[in-house]
Amino acid sequence: MLTNRKEIQIEWGDCDPFGIVFFPRYFEYFDACTNALFHRAVGVSKAEMLRHYKIAGIPLVQASCNFLVPSSFGDMVTVESRVTQWGTSSFSVEHKLFRGETLAVEGLEKRVWTVRIDGERSKAKSQQIPKEVIDKFL
Amino acid sequence: MLTNRKEIQIEWGDCDPFGIVFFPRYFEYFDACTNALFHRAVGVSKAEMLRHYKIAGIPLVQASCNFLVPSSFGDMVTVESRVTQWGTSSFSVEHKLFRGETLAVEGLEKRVWTVRIDGERSKAKSQQIPKEVIDKFL
Amino acid sequence: MLTNRKEIQIEWGDCDPFGIVFFPRYFEYFDACTNALFHRAVGVSKAEMLRHYKIAGIPLVQASCNFLVPSSFGDMVTVESRVTQWGTSSFSVEHKLFRGETLAVEGLEKRVWTVRIDGERSKAKSQQIPKEVIDKFL
Amino acid sequence: MLTNRKEIQIEWGDCDPFGIVFFPRYFEYFDACTNALFHRAVGVSKAEMLRHYKIAGIPLVQASCNFLVPSSFGDMVTVESRVTQWGTSSFSVEHKLFRGETLAVEGLEKRVWTVRIDGERSKAKSQQIPKEVIDKFL
Repeated sequence: MLTNRKEIQIEWGDCDPFGIVFFPRYFEYFDACTNALFHRAVGVSKAEMLRHYKIAGIPLVQASCNFLVPSSFGDMVTVESRVTQWGTSSFSVEHKLFRGETLAVEGLEKRVWTVRIDGERSKAKSQQIPKEVIDKFL
Repeated sequence: MLTNRKEIQIEWGDCDPFGIVFFPRYFEYFDACTNALFHRAVGVSKAEMLRHYKIAGIPLVQASCNFLVPSSFGDMVTVESRVTQWGTSSFSVEHKLFRGETLAVEGLEKRVWTVRIDGERSKAKSQQIPKEVIDKFL
Repeated sequence: MLTNRKEIQIEWGDCDPFGIVFFPRYFEYFDACTNALFHRAVGVSKAEMLRHYKIAGIPLVQASCNFLVPSSFGDMVTVESRVTQWGTSSFSVEHKLFRGETLAVEGLEKRVWTVRIDGERSKAKSQQIPKEVIDKFL
Repeated sequence: MLTNRKEIQIEWGDCDPFGIVFFPRYFEYFDACTNALFHRAVGVSKAEMLRHYKIAGIPLVQASCNFLVPSSFGDMVTVESRVTQWGTSSFSVEHKLFRGETLAVEGLEKRVWTVRIDGERSKAKSQQIPKEVIDKFL
């Protein structure tokens, strides 16, 4: 299964008064990593992908993280991301964040392929993921 | 077990281009809700609690959310938070976010009572939670 | 001129490794304060105001802050916000953030009353502010 | 004067319900750009610079932005940053954010070289900037 690697610089503003990454920032990093994974697989940016497949987005129904080792301002970390499961309209993305060789954070996202409900802003429903999309991750 | 309720106004800057709350913001809300729960139980702000008990913080080892119903800019939501389990040095906090009567997001945090390691910035180790603290949540 | 006061709790996640508010958070606070000021003046939430006046938003063309005194996690601060100038399609909002009696941060925003350009997503143009809106701030 | 260029990918979570970058995010970008500029000039990360020069940080006393052209999710922008003025203990950093050839946002930061006040957490005072530091930007 296609794996994408993304380097992330831990910024001053991502860290809390104890000097380590404020944990919701990891979920932000992983959201960007999922977008980068799709960009690499599909070959266009997520913005273009939304337009091409006429979807509203790939919102989450579940997200979880295990925080094993903290990271601090100035660290450069690497995130490895891959889809671990494809359902009919949902899929799971796994993220492993490394500080050097050390696995520091593990994240899991469950997302849904959704289309806008006609005429209703901010509302969406799930739809079958095109086989053509899934094939690009193999 | 003591439950704290906190009202949260969904702000423009918390929402994404689809018009709904960007999911990492829920983890930020819940972090503030845990602090509010401790404030209510212990009777002082988290900042004062850290000083009083000479702890470095209550960092997370695990966080997870189920996103059931989206919320949008302008919504006022209510979060109910309570400790569901006390271990020796760790504890779990459950958050239920409601839009009106509807359960919209469920969150779970596993946190650790930590003290600073002498002379080392941004490093900490777990310590036994004082019985006096736990008693305040009963 | 109508002044709105908003209390803000400085959260752990708003503060940086030095222990003080990370400065972009003040701009987030002030954005929420402008929305609260409009809510109070117009009588409905910004979300409803956007729909009622068929506007796209009130985006900024300029923002500035003077940071006089830092604030830290656990502080409760008060922001006083008021419109200081109405132009044809633009207006200025002044924010004064107080820690107790001390003026800690001064902010100024210049914003524009904008409508969506038909058929173009994420594009907008300025429009005359309705006199009815301005009158509500007197 | 040394100029640093930094490419920034506009992320989904940086954008608001109108689909454009939520303006406080530009101040976050520029904070990271200042750190990158110092990294390039001084040759070590800001974290190491803080330790080497025994300073608490380079906090802001003033920040301002002109927002000329909006950017959206999926855009790749470039920021050019340089110090425009050195005072005794303060300095100014200018940031120009470009979308392609178009100047989209101009930012200005006034910052102070500060040292920690002994024994007081979250308190600092200004100190003369070492000539050795300034020389690295020429």
